[in-house]
This record gives sequence, C-alpha cells and structure tokens, in this order.
Amino acid sequence: MKRPTIADIARRAGVSKGAVSYALNGQPGVSEATRQRIVAIAQEIGFNPNSAARALSGASARAVGLTLCRPARILGIEPWFMGLISGFEAELSARSYALTLQVVATPELEVEVYRRWWGERRIDGVIVTDLRENDIRIPVLQQLQLPAVVIGGPGETGKIAQIWSDDAGAITEAVRYLVALGHRRIARVSGLPGLLHTQARTKAFNDTCSSLGLEAVTVPSDYTGEEGSRATRRLLIDTDRPTAIIYDNDVMAVAGLAVAQEMGLAVPGDLSIVAWDDSPLCSLVHPPLTALTRDIAEYGAHAARELLASIDGKEVGNVEAGTAHLTPRGSTAPPR
Amino acid sequence: MKRPTIADIARRAGVSKGAVSYALNGQPGVSEATRQRIVAIAQEIGFNPNSAARALSGASARAVGLTLCRPARILGIEPWFMGLISGFEAELSARSYALTLQVVATPELEVEVYRRWWGERRIDGVIVTDLRENDIRIPVLQQLQLPAVVIGGPGETGKIAQIWSDDAGAITEAVRYLVALGHRRIARVSGLPGLLHTQARTKAFNDTCSSLGLEAVTVPSDYTGEEGSRATRRLLIDTDRPTAIIYDNDVMAVAGLAVAQEMGLAVPGDLSIVAWDDSPLCSLVHPPLTALTRDIAEYGAHAARELLASIDGKEVGNVEAGTAHLTPRGSTAPPR
Repeated sequence: MKRPTIADIARRAGVSKGAVSYALNGQPGVSEATRQRIVAIAQEIGFNPNSAARALSGASARAVGLTLCRPARILGIEPWFMGLISGFEAELSARSYALTLQVVATPELEVEVYRRWWGERRIDGVIVTDLRENDIRIPVLQQLQLPAVVIGGPGETGKIAQIWSDDAGAITEAVRYLVALGHRRIARVSGLPGLLHTQARTKAFNDTCSSLGLEAVTVPSDYTGEEGSRATRRLLIDTDRPTAIIYDNDVMAVAGLAVAQEMGLAVPGDLSIVAWDDSPLCSLVHPPLTALTRDIAEYGAHAARELLASIDGKEVGNVEAGTAHLTPRGSTAPPR
Repeated sequence: MKRPTIADIARRAGVSKGAVSYALNGQPGVSEATRQRIVAIAQEIGFNPNSAARALSGASARAVGLTLCRPARILGIEPWFMGLISGFEAELSARSYALTLQVVATPELEVEVYRRWWGERRIDGVIVTDLRENDIRIPVLQQLQLPAVVIGGPGETGKIAQIWSDDAGAITEAVRYLVALGHRRIARVSGLPGLLHTQARTKAFNDTCSSLGLEAVTVPSDYTGEEGSRATRRLLIDTDRPTAIIYDNDVMAVAGLAVAQEMGLAVPGDLSIVAWDDSPLCSLVHPPLTALTRDIAEYGAHAARELLASIDGKEVGNVEAGTAHLTPRGSTAPPR
C-alpha cells in the first residue's frame, strides 16, 4: 500500500501528470469535463495536494501532544489519566483537534519527542503532566517557544501557564474531618514521591498532623493496586495500627479496602478509608468510599481550553482549578 | 508564539537568510565556524528544515490513528479501552510511533477524519474498533487503501485484516460452568446491541441456553455502571429472579454486585456474578469477581503489531487472538 500521488490519478484518469496538476490547481489546459473527472478521482483516492504543502507554510497541525513518562500499562489501570484524557478529548474533539499520545521511557526521551513533534509541525502545543522538581522539560519548552500548559504544580515554569489544584487544602480538610470523627492514628499511602503534587500533599499532611499533635505516617507507593495492597498490609500488621488511612488515588484505596476485608477488619468500624481522587470505582465498591472529589474530566477540559487559547495567540496565565472537596460515604466513621 | 523560521536563525546569528540556507544545506559560502554556530542555533530553537518537506515526499508519519465514536467520557470509565490503548502504546512506543486519538460524534465524521488524516499524511494507518453491521468505514478504508486493522469482528472487511476473539466460545463456557454449578435461571446484561461482537455473544448465549433447555434472558445495556445497575435491579425485582448474571463488561458487573448488596442479596449465595472482561477492578472488589479473562493489553499490542507489519508492506491476514477463559473467583457458587 502506498499513499496516492499525482501519477496514480493520471493513470486512473488516462491523462498526463501535467494535466492532473493543471486540473487540481484550476489552471487552463484541460477541459471542464476532464477537470471534474480528475477532481472526483483525487477525492475518491484521498489525494490532497495542499495538505502536506500546507505544513510547510506553518499552518495549524490541528493536534495537541501528550507524552507520558510512565509504564504504558498505567493507562489501563489509572482512572485519573483516563478521566483527564477524556476531558482533553471533550474539548479537542469539539474543535476537531486530535490528541497525539506517546509513551516514553525517560524525561530525556520526552524532550526529544517534543523537539521532533514541534520541528515536524505535528502538533500545535503540548499538555504537560507529572511536573517534577527541576523538571528538564520546562527549559526545553521555553527554548522551543512551544505552546504548553502544565498540570500538577504549582512549580517553577517561568512563562508557561499552569493549571493546578490546592492539594494542601484538600488533604488538610480530610485530616481534620477524620480527627473530628475521633481518629488519632491516621496514616497515608502516597503516590510517586518525585512528583511535585505528591510533595505538596506530604508537606501539608505532616504540617496538619503536627499542629494537631498527631504522628504523621506516610508510606510512599506508586498508584498501583499491588503496591497499595502491600503498603496497607504493612500498616495494618502493626500492633499500633492506624484507625484511618488516606490514599493518594482510588485504585490504591480500593485495594486497601480489599486488604482490610481479607484481614477481617470491618470498614469503617475498624478502619476508615479516604480515597483521592474520586472515580466511579469509589461508588461501586461496598462500602462506597469516602473520597476527595474533583471533576477530573473538567480539569482536563480546562487545561485543553487554556492550551487552545495559547495556540490561538491569547495570553494565558496560571489558573487555580477548584479544590477537591470531601465526599463522605460509607467508608468513614468514628473509630470503635 | 510562532514556529521557528530561517529568518529567526538569521536574526539570532546576525547573518543573512541566504547564509543560513547555505549553512544548513552544507553548501559553500559560509565559514565552518559560522556554519557550526548556525546549526547550533537551529537545533536550539527546534528548527527542522527537512521535516515538513519530508511529509511531501511520502515518508512515514510515524503515527497511527484511532477514532472513537463514543462519548469522550467513556474513556474515563471503561477499563477495556484503556487496556487496549495501553497495549497499542506498549508496541508503538517501542517503535517511536505516536497514537493519534480523536473522539467523533458519528461514523460519518469518523470517515471524514480518516480521509483528512490520510490525505494530510498525519498517520500511516488506523486501528478500527467497534465494528458494526454494514460498517460504513470499511468501504472508505478500502477506497483510500489506508493500512488498517479491525478489532471486534469477525465481520465483512474484505481485504482489511481483522483481529478477533472467539466470543461465542467464551460465553458458552461461562453458561456451561454456571449450569454445572446447578444454576437454571441465568440472565445476561449485554453491551451495545449494534456492535458485531455483542451480536455474536447474544446468539451463542441464546443457542447454549436453548440447547440446555433454559430460558435466555438478555437485558441490553451500554457498558456504563449506571445502566448496569438499572438492568440488574430490573432482573432482581422479578419474583422468578435469576440466580446468576453474566455481564458484558467489568464496570456493569461491579455495579451489579453493589446492587445485589444494596438489596440484601448475598453474592454468591443468592446471586452468582460473572464479569467480562476481567480487569484489576474485578479482583479489587469483595468478593472478587469470577471473570472471562483475556490479556486486553496484549490484544491491543497484537493489533498494533499487525498494523505496523501492514504499514511496512507485509501481507497480514485475519488473526484469531486467544479466547477468553473463565477465571473462577469468589462471586460464583452453587445456588442456595
């Protein structure tokens, strides 16, 4: 199989390549009947003479890029990313933009992909997730002057617009709610420790616990159910086990619920559980999980809108999206 | 913000545009020191003189397309799609191919996107999901000679390669297993009735039940938890309610489990549940769900390998991927 060329059209129409060129460019040299026949054949075989040339002129690629420096399988197990991508798509598809997605192994390869996409006019801008300390992607984006919106700060991104959510405020609310219920031993199973928003959550968790005279125990994890289960077992075999655990995502929280049940602990009687983020998963399990809720798809849609505005040449600044709020369900109660 | 041009390089290097052109094309007319300086600047600002021109020559786009004619939010709630996409990515990222994703409202728009992507050299091939009867995408793909692999048949796709799984065999195994446990009233909550693989499942379910002298009750649904819950309630309020339900996906099965628990029915004592497909979700709930298991990510990876082979000009035929097999877990038992 190969892409259609002028030669293919010429062969099918039984005319010269020159005649095809005249016909498609609306120049004299072919009869109107032949011109119409040639245009019909070009349309039928999907020949578009201007499209590739258009790229040379610097026209829009009508696509937005997203690289993901995580194992490809995370896409299959992490509702957060899918919620985010569904939000991007809702906004992009309304404008007939595609989302170009590439999974890469390292941040260095991520930067290479940005350079290639931008140099080859494949994308008009990128959405950047998983912001880290001294993130090597930021100076490259600045150098390339590639339109971008960063999710997951706040961090140092210079002139590149950020959209972020007040993670510190949300976790503080969760801890204070559990303390109001009577909990004194509250643990946390965190996400990837290298990510800026994980660090913001850890600092706020430590500060809040310390101001209330509680010990702050955080077991770092990686957002997967397997690691979430292991971290939960490690916490629950302790003689001085926590009476409440806050999880940095829903997959780990659901895994933690299953561990509690396997160990014969009643939820919420023996153990209260708070999930972050909320997803349909949290309402589907029994008991349904108390969660820190925000509209992840709307968060993604908001980021896409900011990026499209930036691509359109508008000034976009940093935006604080809504703070996640606590949605109490059956998994939290006063400790027995 | 705008894409870098030769003029930008000339300005930064303090030379003429002609000098930049000489330097980048390795022609005489500039000193070696100036040439190196110009090349360094071009690299720094992401100028790639050959990339857009390369598209004109018919070179590879190094991207594969996927359109999705479902609401964008399905991406956030349906582990099947994310598993599939993670499988595509695992294979594509190893070859440095991107996945270009676009959500569309109708099959007609899907076809338009194919035409545009292919005409504009944005993609080298497409992966087609959700195959329907008299699918309008198939003749267009044939006409465009666009490399494609179809998932979700078997159906009429002419010379376009298909990858499919024996849905009839899998559901027959599930029904026979439930009957062996002693169940006589088995119901099914199905996926979208317009999809070919849903029809294959329904036919096999009806045939198997009929050959065993059982009534075959299928409530059509749409893969969402909300509709799965509603369908389950409709089945369970019946005085002659089923003692086992097979669900066409995991999200509906988990929702069905929650409905049984809300109605005070013990799973598996009062109701056995079988989920299809299996996903981490099925193992995370309590009791964990008996499921029809196949490696969805590997299914996606297989489809991507077939498509890449087809793009490389190799002959690819229809492939039957592995049949889903029954993984018994805590949600199935003999009826009380």
